[in-house]
Amino acid sequence: MAVKNAFYAQSGGVTAVINASAAGVIEAARKNKLKIGKIYAGRNGIIGALTEDLIDTGKESKTAVRGLCSTPSGAFGSCRYKLKSLDENRREYERLIEVFKAHNIGYFFYNGGGDSADTCLKVSQIAKKLGYPVQAIHVPKTVDNDLPITDCCPGFGSVAKYIAVSTREASFDVASMSKTSTKVFVLEVMGRHAGWIAAAGGLASDKDCEIPIVILFPEITFNKKKFLAKVKKCVNEFGYCSVVVSEGVKDAKGNFLADQGLRDAFGHAQLGGVAPVVANIVKDGLGLKYHWSVADYLQRSARHVASKTDVDQAYALGKAAVEFAVKGHNAVMPTIKRLSNKPYKWKIGMAQLSKVANVEKMMPSNFITKDGFGITDKCRAYLVPLIKGEDYPSYKNGLPKYVRLKNIGVKKKLSNFKI
Amino acid sequence: MAVKNAFYAQSGGVTAVINASAAGVIEAARKNKLKIGKIYAGRNGIIGALTEDLIDTGKESKTAVRGLCSTPSGAFGSCRYKLKSLDENRREYERLIEVFKAHNIGYFFYNGGGDSADTCLKVSQIAKKLGYPVQAIHVPKTVDNDLPITDCCPGFGSVAKYIAVSTREASFDVASMSKTSTKVFVLEVMGRHAGWIAAAGGLASDKDCEIPIVILFPEITFNKKKFLAKVKKCVNEFGYCSVVVSEGVKDAKGNFLADQGLRDAFGHAQLGGVAPVVANIVKDGLGLKYHWSVADYLQRSARHVASKTDVDQAYALGKAAVEFAVKGHNAVMPTIKRLSNKPYKWKIGMAQLSKVANVEKMMPSNFITKDGFGITDKCRAYLVPLIKGEDYPSYKNGLPKYVRLKNIGVKKKLSNFKI
Repeated sequence: MAVKNAFYAQSGGVTAVINASAAGVIEAARKNKLKIGKIYAGRNGIIGALTEDLIDTGKESKTAVRGLCSTPSGAFGSCRYKLKSLDENRREYERLIEVFKAHNIGYFFYNGGGDSADTCLKVSQIAKKLGYPVQAIHVPKTVDNDLPITDCCPGFGSVAKYIAVSTREASFDVASMSKTSTKVFVLEVMGRHAGWIAAAGGLASDKDCEIPIVILFPEITFNKKKFLAKVKKCVNEFGYCSVVVSEGVKDAKGNFLADQGLRDAFGHAQLGGVAPVVANIVKDGLGLKYHWSVADYLQRSARHVASKTDVDQAYALGKAAVEFAVKGHNAVMPTIKRLSNKPYKWKIGMAQLSKVANVEKMMPSNFITKDGFGITDKCRAYLVPLIKGEDYPSYKNGLPKYVRLKNIGVKKKLSNFKI
Repeated sequence: MAVKNAFYAQSGGVTAVINASAAGVIEAARKNKLKIGKIYAGRNGIIGALTEDLIDTGKESKTAVRGLCSTPSGAFGSCRYKLKSLDENRREYERLIEVFKAHNIGYFFYNGGGDSADTCLKVSQIAKKLGYPVQAIHVPKTVDNDLPITDCCPGFGSVAKYIAVSTREASFDVASMSKTSTKVFVLEVMGRHAGWIAAAGGLASDKDCEIPIVILFPEITFNKKKFLAKVKKCVNEFGYCSVVVSEGVKDAKGNFLADQGLRDAFGHAQLGGVAPVVANIVKDGLGLKYHWSVADYLQRSARHVASKTDVDQAYALGKAAVEFAVKGHNAVMPTIKRLSNKPYKWKIGMAQLSKVANVEKMMPSNFITKDGFGITDKCRAYLVPLIKGEDYPSYKNGLPKYVRLKNIGVKKKLSNFKI
């Protein structure tokens, strides 16, 4: 087999550990010089491939690549750009193949969620059709943890750890204040469709450290009366209560709670803020003093409190993607297979992309308590290993030393392409 | 001098390190058995003293007290309860002295901000007048860093570190997304009057890691036109921009940008939610995609990323308060005196409470850049040492092991008191 170059790109929302997957891909590829030549990255994801804006990762030092393991965000830039279907925009797929051909790229590593798994599959298919076969391997990444087949997704464990730790800390705070002041703390977390991240808030309470936590899952229709009764019960019993609310929670009419017309002093609708809506419901319904927080990007970029399990798996999946490629696999995705909970053991598996693309993994219903506001022991057994272990970045002057790459471009060979 | 008991209470908003001060007080007092007998704590702050709801800290193990050094929040409960002036409510002060007398309390350690420094001073004065002298020592604490005389306040360094780290992380995130998606990230931070916490956001950018950060200080009147021009310039130059906005930012009419019309027990405006207001201004004015976050309690309870400097100083000030007391001082507060920046050196000083009470330390004007949106080198030189060093809690199952005390009550000797 002739030596071919590799192309790697990051897609969609970034995470605290997607760069660890990048490091896994680059370091493994550098060890396979008999099969893999240059390792290019797309500047701003797939847009970099379409516009022939390639980065030569060969210009990055070993230290810099290693540094990616402890650097959040997408070191090459990501993008929210979904390739349309083959029928709708065949031109884009053909352009990708042209760029791959021009730069002798035979390996396509695409690091993203459900949409990018689909793109990855299509690239593999059209490449074959066009007579320029490319091995397309998907590297899973999504804080939402909603990819099928794999036991979990890199990025999720670290968000989950951040939310669990933050919920515990803020709950200690509200407990201290509850005698005369704040009694309810509301934390808004990500997860538009699946409640995995919200569920992680439930980990803040365990047998060593009981905390009254009410979780609002996107899987459970919001019922104001039941919610207020639950919060009231917690406050009566513990003196305070923490609410972890998923941004995707909907009311009985199917509308996002966050879209229900909370307006600021200027009369502007406040978008994305389900926390203040829930806090107001608590105030109006129970007359309790509240505080609320919206974690937003802080949760998914919090490399300073990343889960070691997550970092290790992100790296291992990037590495495995390269190993699959050099073994000749195509249109596959490395996965995490859980072998046991106690002790937690896992290994790398392999999924066909045809079975991954466009399938969303929701929370199993037996992960949510009957009242709809908590997590079950089964859920806890699943989640705990994913947040285990600390893997601190190094610090300078009180701040984490995160790597910035040189990101030196590769000379273009083709004419411009308008996207 | 006869052995007297000590009383310790936590006041106002809690922090990531106020319990380290508690540990300093308790451990130092335990070493001074010739002068200090029992060490009582107020359950829920000064309310515990008024209602004779005392906790016997002698029932807590050495390990538990040591654990306070790495536990956020107020371990004995805090409260927002400001004693009125002597003229308005002499009865409350007299009650305090009655309780102190009944429990042979000769030392009053009050751990709080400006309001509690004032209370502490008054207690010392009225105790003397009533013929039951109590040595009242104030232990400084406030995330707002607005106490005078002391170089900094315990609690601030850890919030500052959290905000600096989070701003850096979220900025890396928005930079990754900016090609096709989010270009502006807005982070709302605490600081009602003084912009110390907002200033810490500026530390996220340094010579090793340049980041375009626009800070909105409460000290600077919000000017929409200038703000939008600044954000636009950053986005043009860097492709993205982070905005760190203090909850206390006001418009030209003197209204809080985020005022929701609520008031807390101190009569302070209850704020929260300036981030969405600012984000809407960016969207309406520049048409840029944004994300926003409100850190709220997460920032002040984030013991997982506390500053080692801050933890050390919090402990040292608690310890010093006891040492002052056993030396016979009264109506004083231990302070931090900065000796040098490079290397950072500090020692404990002493301030008279009469000079501390009701004085607010604002940001010096030469700490804010001329355009009003950034921090100067002078400010950076002041702030950096305060966020230096990491002091991680230990973890179990992926979560920090925070201490919960037994908080066993002391038998009451007096009749009830209605507050």
